[in-house]
Amino acid sequence: MPDHAISPTRAEDYPEWYQQVVRAADLAEPSPVRGCMVIKPHGYAIWERMQAILDRMFKATGHQNAYFPLFIPLSYLEKEAKHVEGFAKECAVVTHHRLELSPEGKLVPTGKLEEPLVVRPTSETIIGEMFSRWVQSWRDLPLLVNQWANVVRWEMRPRVFLRTAEFLWQEGHTAHATREEAVEETLRMLDVYATFAERDLAIPVIRGPKPAAERFPGAVETYSIEAMMQDGKALQAGTSHFLGQNFARAQGIRFAGPSGAEEFCWTTSWGVSTRLVGAVIMTHSDDDGLVLPPRIAPAQVVLLPIHRTPEEREQVLAACRRLEEELRATSFADEPVRVRIDARDMRGGEKTWQHVKQGVPLRVEIGPRDLAAGTVSVTRRDRPPKERSGLPIAGFAAAVPGLLAEIERGLFGRAREFRDRRSAPLDSLEAVRGYFAGDGGSEIGDGGFAHVHVADDPAVAAALDPLKVTVRCVPMEGGDEPGRCVVTGQPVPRRSVLARSY
Amino acid sequence: MPDHAISPTRAEDYPEWYQQVVRAADLAEPSPVRGCMVIKPHGYAIWERMQAILDRMFKATGHQNAYFPLFIPLSYLEKEAKHVEGFAKECAVVTHHRLELSPEGKLVPTGKLEEPLVVRPTSETIIGEMFSRWVQSWRDLPLLVNQWANVVRWEMRPRVFLRTAEFLWQEGHTAHATREEAVEETLRMLDVYATFAERDLAIPVIRGPKPAAERFPGAVETYSIEAMMQDGKALQAGTSHFLGQNFARAQGIRFAGPSGAEEFCWTTSWGVSTRLVGAVIMTHSDDDGLVLPPRIAPAQVVLLPIHRTPEEREQVLAACRRLEEELRATSFADEPVRVRIDARDMRGGEKTWQHVKQGVPLRVEIGPRDLAAGTVSVTRRDRPPKERSGLPIAGFAAAVPGLLAEIERGLFGRAREFRDRRSAPLDSLEAVRGYFAGDGGSEIGDGGFAHVHVADDPAVAAALDPLKVTVRCVPMEGGDEPGRCVVTGQPVPRRSVLARSY
Repeated sequence: MPDHAISPTRAEDYPEWYQQVVRAADLAEPSPVRGCMVIKPHGYAIWERMQAILDRMFKATGHQNAYFPLFIPLSYLEKEAKHVEGFAKECAVVTHHRLELSPEGKLVPTGKLEEPLVVRPTSETIIGEMFSRWVQSWRDLPLLVNQWANVVRWEMRPRVFLRTAEFLWQEGHTAHATREEAVEETLRMLDVYATFAERDLAIPVIRGPKPAAERFPGAVETYSIEAMMQDGKALQAGTSHFLGQNFARAQGIRFAGPSGAEEFCWTTSWGVSTRLVGAVIMTHSDDDGLVLPPRIAPAQVVLLPIHRTPEEREQVLAACRRLEEELRATSFADEPVRVRIDARDMRGGEKTWQHVKQGVPLRVEIGPRDLAAGTVSVTRRDRPPKERSGLPIAGFAAAVPGLLAEIERGLFGRAREFRDRRSAPLDSLEAVRGYFAGDGGSEIGDGGFAHVHVADDPAVAAALDPLKVTVRCVPMEGGDEPGRCVVTGQPVPRRSVLARSY
Repeated sequence: MPDHAISPTRAEDYPEWYQQVVRAADLAEPSPVRGCMVIKPHGYAIWERMQAILDRMFKATGHQNAYFPLFIPLSYLEKEAKHVEGFAKECAVVTHHRLELSPEGKLVPTGKLEEPLVVRPTSETIIGEMFSRWVQSWRDLPLLVNQWANVVRWEMRPRVFLRTAEFLWQEGHTAHATREEAVEETLRMLDVYATFAERDLAIPVIRGPKPAAERFPGAVETYSIEAMMQDGKALQAGTSHFLGQNFARAQGIRFAGPSGAEEFCWTTSWGVSTRLVGAVIMTHSDDDGLVLPPRIAPAQVVLLPIHRTPEEREQVLAACRRLEEELRATSFADEPVRVRIDARDMRGGEKTWQHVKQGVPLRVEIGPRDLAAGTVSVTRRDRPPKERSGLPIAGFAAAVPGLLAEIERGLFGRAREFRDRRSAPLDSLEAVRGYFAGDGGSEIGDGGFAHVHVADDPAVAAALDPLKVTVRCVPMEGGDEPGRCVVTGQPVPRRSVLARSY
């Protein structure tokens, strides 16, 4: 066995380490279809956990799920100029609706469409069109809709989970009678995302509005949650857009107010995607593979029977089944503990390492000696793989929720400390340059989150571009002092977060 | 108020009645994108209920969810000749990956793809390709995978839920070491579908193999469950395909057996779709709109507070909230009863009719007089809309599971009686002709399920074609006697079901 299950390590080659963690945990793989990924059962089970939690949160805040067409007519896209501009370069276009076999036995597209259709890169235009039919009066508002769907944005340099041509996501779309309500909704969903990231994924995030250049095409204001990966780069983990009346005007979403006068609606949209699986991997995993926060772990506990003789096998399996039952009757985060017995007939070491690499929070070995002593041998994924503790079998099921809570707190704390260690308030462009050139001497990557006074001005982006750094957002939380933009000298009320990013 | 909430009635114009039920229940609507539908929140909530139940059944039978690319390269389709032939005429084809604005301000597709991509009409070929990479040895088998996804089959005459260019479905794909195991899997999933249809949708179905001409393109055997709609037509509600080694050969899915010799796998696929929502509508609904079987009803009970003064409102709402809590603590079909208070400020009659048209199984009115008498006024969706019963409020929550079970049994029984009434064993082609020409004198549509001895022979299809009748399947259940094909005279072991169909 090498020192670590994953080669290369994070320090040796961070991007390659990421690919190897994905492979070792059997989460996904690139597909033969250019830019598209195949999400394998373990990766999809993590996404299902994320969906279940988010879906409950969306419904608790009054949203309903619906489903809108995959295809968008070109004429819809044309209506919002900035929106088209933002997405035109990455649209998959359907131009034909049948195939014919050529005399050479090759399939050839036929049945040319009068108007080509775009495979949705996002659904503001098609959902806006439907909203315009559904809204007549202020009584029909607010409209609060969410869609779980696949979207396509053509991608020349795909990276599994982080950037793929097709990905899975949810997109919320809402329409309101007033600007205030729409802004409130935008911020409410930003909060839902931040709560989900911090509570369920154990990923600390910074929330705030993005500069104009980084806005969603067509939005008045884009808010994001930004997380730090272990190479110091930022990953935008969710966005919530206040769309003003831009899409309402483009799509004709009008309502008659109480006085009868017609007005345009105010709309929002917000989304998170399978990218979050990538965020979880890069936040928590180590050189032994995936580390899963308990709330999204498909299995929170794996029971590993150890035996040599058929009699031992029977005894040990019976004990495992009793423990499984007890654990299923126990709750963590308002749900029964998810437990799995792995009784496959294979070498114990190999089996254990599979679960290490797949990120199961608690591994529990049970053998004849344990049974005799009335104990189980427990290993935590957040601790070194050989650090075992013997716990009494009698109280074990009752202890599991506490252990999972401790792991969850530990992962969050560790990620926040890491982020804090790699964050710095900086007060000159020179200091920013030095920071991202490696002044900090970090083990992986250079720089981190630079908290800097900058104006929302093209000159700032131009100055940061050579450093491959962008303004991620203007943090909404925590105390801050006004200052002057380090590039333009304009006065600004707060610092922004500058970082390299995924 | 007219006699009925839906106009036209079933007897007046069945196809139009269907559209009006969909509209009145606010389930879905045609979209401006040709052939595609928008599934509205109430329709989508029904689909979510179906998904939740089926997903549990798939997992309980050992399947795992995964996700595969939306796009399929033409070269994959070409590999299985019958498969291509079956789907070529209805494939949406992506030929470009970007858009540019022309000088006239029109969007034009650019970035032509070297190899066009088809939007998946089904995923045997792409999933088969992945399977060929995942399977090496017999130890890797069986592979039991399911995917929840959208698919596209270009459709010239769309009908909401029943036949749309894009629809939502699940597709199971499995690979096995032996023919026997694959056949067993095919039949196991057919049984899962039949159980789901009869238990959860209260739709009686007939299961059996289809004749060669009706097989899934590329399958060795296709089994279906067939349900009868209220116009006597059959609706294929789910299919399970034994694919033999056809796709394994086309895609190269090979494994080394225990002896080391390489063999091709045996594969299956099986699916149900949003079409099931159409099946539910057409099986149970009446001239007042949708009727939902309780297990898939998004709300099983709606509480309707009735009041005039603010004091009454407060009292009545408090009673509703108590009842809501009690109901949520009660179980039906192993889940908490789903209940909703509708306290909207609108005319009582209009509100009640909305719930009638939306198919809520139980409507419960609570007013000051009820409170004084200690009762609630209950109306069942499977009984006439004015047939009320006063039930004591004290025991009401405890009585609800029994009421829901009674409704469920009643709906199933009614549908089965209807089907039996419109089924007939027929022993000559002449009798079949007469049957489908209206000899039975049915109120809606002509004929029904004709149980007839026919061979699996092209001559049978040719003889039935002028009647617009097809062989739906050869029922696997019930006693039956051998006979001679009414068209060719060949001896056949069992009768088949002949019907018009959706």
